[in-house]
Amino acid sequence: MIGDKIYDLAVKLYPINRSLTGNGVRETLEILKEIVPFLHVSEIPSGTACFDWNVPQEWNVKDANGTKVIDFKKHNLHLMGYSEPIHTKMPLVELQKHLRSIADYPEAIPYVTSYYKRDWGFCLSHNEREKLQEGEYEVFIDSELKDGSLTYGEILIKGESEEEILLSTYICHPSMANNELSGPTVSIHLARWLLELPRRYSYRILFIPETIGSICYLSRHYKEMQNNIIAGFVLTCIGDEGDYSYLASIDGDTLADEVAQHVLSHIDKDYKKYSFLQRGSDERQYCSPGIDLPVVDLMRTKYGHYKEYHTSKDDLSVISPKGLEGGYEMVKKVLEALENNHVYKTTVLCEPQLGKRGLYPTQYFKSPGEYVFTMRNVIAYSNGKRTLLEIAQKINKPIWELYGIVQRLMEEKILLCVGD
Amino acid sequence: MIGDKIYDLAVKLYPINRSLTGNGVRETLEILKEIVPFLHVSEIPSGTACFDWNVPQEWNVKDANGTKVIDFKKHNLHLMGYSEPIHTKMPLVELQKHLRSIADYPEAIPYVTSYYKRDWGFCLSHNEREKLQEGEYEVFIDSELKDGSLTYGEILIKGESEEEILLSTYICHPSMANNELSGPTVSIHLARWLLELPRRYSYRILFIPETIGSICYLSRHYKEMQNNIIAGFVLTCIGDEGDYSYLASIDGDTLADEVAQHVLSHIDKDYKKYSFLQRGSDERQYCSPGIDLPVVDLMRTKYGHYKEYHTSKDDLSVISPKGLEGGYEMVKKVLEALENNHVYKTTVLCEPQLGKRGLYPTQYFKSPGEYVFTMRNVIAYSNGKRTLLEIAQKINKPIWELYGIVQRLMEEKILLCVGD
Amino acid sequence: MIGDKIYDLAVKLYPINRSLTGNGVRETLEILKEIVPFLHVSEIPSGTACFDWNVPQEWNVKDANGTKVIDFKKHNLHLMGYSEPIHTKMPLVELQKHLRSIADYPEAIPYVTSYYKRDWGFCLSHNEREKLQEGEYEVFIDSELKDGSLTYGEILIKGESEEEILLSTYICHPSMANNELSGPTVSIHLARWLLELPRRYSYRILFIPETIGSICYLSRHYKEMQNNIIAGFVLTCIGDEGDYSYLASIDGDTLADEVAQHVLSHIDKDYKKYSFLQRGSDERQYCSPGIDLPVVDLMRTKYGHYKEYHTSKDDLSVISPKGLEGGYEMVKKVLEALENNHVYKTTVLCEPQLGKRGLYPTQYFKSPGEYVFTMRNVIAYSNGKRTLLEIAQKINKPIWELYGIVQRLMEEKILLCVGD
Repeated sequence: MIGDKIYDLAVKLYPINRSLTGNGVRETLEILKEIVPFLHVSEIPSGTACFDWNVPQEWNVKDANGTKVIDFKKHNLHLMGYSEPIHTKMPLVELQKHLRSIADYPEAIPYVTSYYKRDWGFCLSHNEREKLQEGEYEVFIDSELKDGSLTYGEILIKGESEEEILLSTYICHPSMANNELSGPTVSIHLARWLLELPRRYSYRILFIPETIGSICYLSRHYKEMQNNIIAGFVLTCIGDEGDYSYLASIDGDTLADEVAQHVLSHIDKDYKKYSFLQRGSDERQYCSPGIDLPVVDLMRTKYGHYKEYHTSKDDLSVISPKGLEGGYEMVKKVLEALENNHVYKTTVLCEPQLGKRGLYPTQYFKSPGEYVFTMRNVIAYSNGKRTLLEIAQKINKPIWELYGIVQRLMEEKILLCVGD
Repeated sequence: MIGDKIYDLAVKLYPINRSLTGNGVRETLEILKEIVPFLHVSEIPSGTACFDWNVPQEWNVKDANGTKVIDFKKHNLHLMGYSEPIHTKMPLVELQKHLRSIADYPEAIPYVTSYYKRDWGFCLSHNEREKLQEGEYEVFIDSELKDGSLTYGEILIKGESEEEILLSTYICHPSMANNELSGPTVSIHLARWLLELPRRYSYRILFIPETIGSICYLSRHYKEMQNNIIAGFVLTCIGDEGDYSYLASIDGDTLADEVAQHVLSHIDKDYKKYSFLQRGSDERQYCSPGIDLPVVDLMRTKYGHYKEYHTSKDDLSVISPKGLEGGYEMVKKVLEALENNHVYKTTVLCEPQLGKRGLYPTQYFKSPGEYVFTMRNVIAYSNGKRTLLEIAQKINKPIWELYGIVQRLMEEKILLCVGD
Repeated sequence: MIGDKIYDLAVKLYPINRSLTGNGVRETLEILKEIVPFLHVSEIPSGTACFDWNVPQEWNVKDANGTKVIDFKKHNLHLMGYSEPIHTKMPLVELQKHLRSIADYPEAIPYVTSYYKRDWGFCLSHNEREKLQEGEYEVFIDSELKDGSLTYGEILIKGESEEEILLSTYICHPSMANNELSGPTVSIHLARWLLELPRRYSYRILFIPETIGSICYLSRHYKEMQNNIIAGFVLTCIGDEGDYSYLASIDGDTLADEVAQHVLSHIDKDYKKYSFLQRGSDERQYCSPGIDLPVVDLMRTKYGHYKEYHTSKDDLSVISPKGLEGGYEMVKKVLEALENNHVYKTTVLCEPQLGKRGLYPTQYFKSPGEYVFTMRNVIAYSNGKRTLLEIAQKINKPIWELYGIVQRLMEEKILLCVGD
């Protein structure tokens, strides 16, 4: 089962201390390369200007602890992301100013970062924080903030056409499973599947740190992306077993929106649709004014909509082989729909005579059945203008039920594919 | 009462054995000519190519019987349409292969045809079928399948304009009343009414065998029809007393759709609207890609939506003078709406002074009443762009309540009719 | 409180006998000039042609009475508007033909006029009418109908742009408070406020008799109004404490409709929306075909939708300082929305880095809060095409919550205002 393979990969990546930059990202990309060897890794030097931003310094951690409980070796979420190095002693009252916990979710370690202001801090469960005794604490953070680089990976897969489909996922969170490991693990396996597929479109698959990564990537590639990308998908929180969900592009009217809604409505009648006002991942950059790419998010349970989100409880029990496989299959259906979204027209005027081709019952007595009705609908709506996706929507059928019918009608020379 | 005349005509046509071709069709058209003498009859030779189809051989029947019960003389539905001739004996087990009945509707003889594959068969009620005893049966079908012709009728009525309205109905079903005799009987009386009307539009009224008839007719006339037809209506199942219904054109946005919905919504608040996905008559050809005519179905209870449909039980008790008259009046309202669907503009800026023309109360005390409000609305919305039908929709009035108001406002020189 | 000032003005104007023409209108305009001295008064001679109408004769009244009860000095509604002079005696049965009362609302004197047919009449409460005894009555109406003029006022306030906003209200009703005094009293105070405001748009504020006044004004000014007016508002029935309401323009799709619905939906979740079919004031002329101005009505409880409407019971108890102030503030919000309805675009591609400008929390832990989300939304939707009003609608925020945010983002040079 593909779900098991994806899950095993998530297990392998789980312990690594990823952040915006640093060796955890590099190690992660090396492991992904085991699945798709020509994943290309780029390094962008610290300080490089990217639109309104600059690539931050690179951060690496050897060790960190504040009490017996707060120990980076036990869980890398204990250390606030981008904490500067420190080694000192202080009373509890001072230490408390640098501690973060969640009173409403007392058993979880929260995920906290301070990327753009030098600071240090520890995170811990509220239960453990409550137990801390007055006294002197030794604080030790053996981290390094230095000019280095920001690391990202990309896979470019050529198809027949210059037109591209974008998949984007992120690799900047330490040990959390649904947000984020479901994204890169599903994406790398989709890349592997795409490589084996006869492809109409080209594919650009990005493994980047969130926000600064997409801004940095866009600053270098947005013109070619504007020229080529016909639909793009941010893959995140795609490994649990909850309902499928989709977050719309800014106007909700792109091909990416159309195909996402079509597929989700046919695989999950309870699928969730979120508006762009509820955005929170790299669609923020892809859909920003002047960039204007047709990008949506594809998810199972949306970030921020499950309790474990951004805590140590978003662990490997939140995702499952079944959940990951469902997410993988959903994206496959989306990509297959795009690959098959041609425009057809009939070769004859009026209805063709299906009976003489063995496609219609010779005696008219009972209803000829759903398959024949669908075939007649495909013919009736194929006017050389409607796309197959539009037809599928019009006739209330999942597009994948039409692939075989179209194939048959092409063989019978009843349908012609017109220039895309 | 017009309903009685229509019903009497249906009674007269009921016993005739119509099919795609043959003398039953000719006899039917001869009887219709008694109402409108210049109904024009055409004969298209067997084998003539019509787009993807060919005109089938002509079929005529002298006699047919299989048992005492299965007797063409008793009910012409007993013989499967287009049965080939045969005279032989066979045991019940062989005969059964050629019998059709409906287990769920055991008292009805089903209607079955095999137009395009040579075969023979009998239809009977399931009750009678159950009673058949083992034994040897004599099967006798004295039918003829030969090169002849397909017969159809048309009435072309000239109006002031080359622009045309299409009425299409079919004449290919043996003894069944709502589907089909309500269609041709209502249509021929509409033709008679139209001949006495001062007409803006030209009319094309077709009496054709379903499917092959419309394909054949379109193959000879579709270009002129595309040039001229502004709205078309398939009239079928229009003689029972059920709610009115309408089946939309492929995109549901033509003038025919607009006027049908307007009229039906004002005469029957429970009227039914069916989508093109539920199609089943000649709108399948008229709306096919490349033909693209603006055609909808006008009905009372839709084909396939009443139990007796396509059985011997669709007899003269399913239709009634009242039901037929309702259908006739509904189509009249549709055609009158089109005839009156002009564009008007006001001759003055701001509201005209209605009071000085006796159209408004001189004392302003109580509300001037609904008629005055409607008159003011007609004036306010007559901007030289909106059609009267659009105005009627905007102001929530049946268009027929506006004819007299428009007339009066034209006489008062407050409204002008602008080029249509 | 501004509400008290507006109410005091209504109290002062209440006793005056206004009508289509005459000294009551002049006296009213003189009092309004005390608030805005350069209110300009025009006089249009009787008989002047205005599109389909002519300015009527001027009407003035010295005295009128029919019984002890029916006395113009007690309430000017007792005299039918535009009653011709008469002095005679008649029995009750004759007098009754000239009396108007409302059986269903027996304590109220109705408001009746006969502008365009010479006649005379008295109005009284149904209770008093019932008490009238048989006998001879002296009827005395000391009125004057003569060639004079129709009087109206206008305030033209220049802004940076030639583009104009229209406010229109009427001054032709005798002693009634919500319909009509709420209109001119709120309007004159809005004019005063506008004079103190830095203004982008020019304003045209009209104080006219209803119907003939707007027709007369339009006949002289409609071309410049069509060139300049971007949105217009009839202010009427705007001083009670009921829900806010709005009556749409003919197609309901103008900037005036857009801003009215936006403001009302955010200040009153139960606000009422009326269609143009329910019109009844000067929007009838402004939206008439060929005039086609983008005008809607702004109201609290709509004319005709409260019991006291058009009777002596529409007195100073129907309006209140609070009700008037609410109406005044509502229109202010509408005008401010238009003044602030610029188009902005971002100066950077992708999201700007808010953190480095102190606009975003440096530690990402908890949600950054509603203000930050709104700021990010303003940035994300400012693509150089959407107006601020469109953005406010898209992001479900009242536009006034965006003014400060836009200001801040302009100061930070993240947003630019593009040519309007």
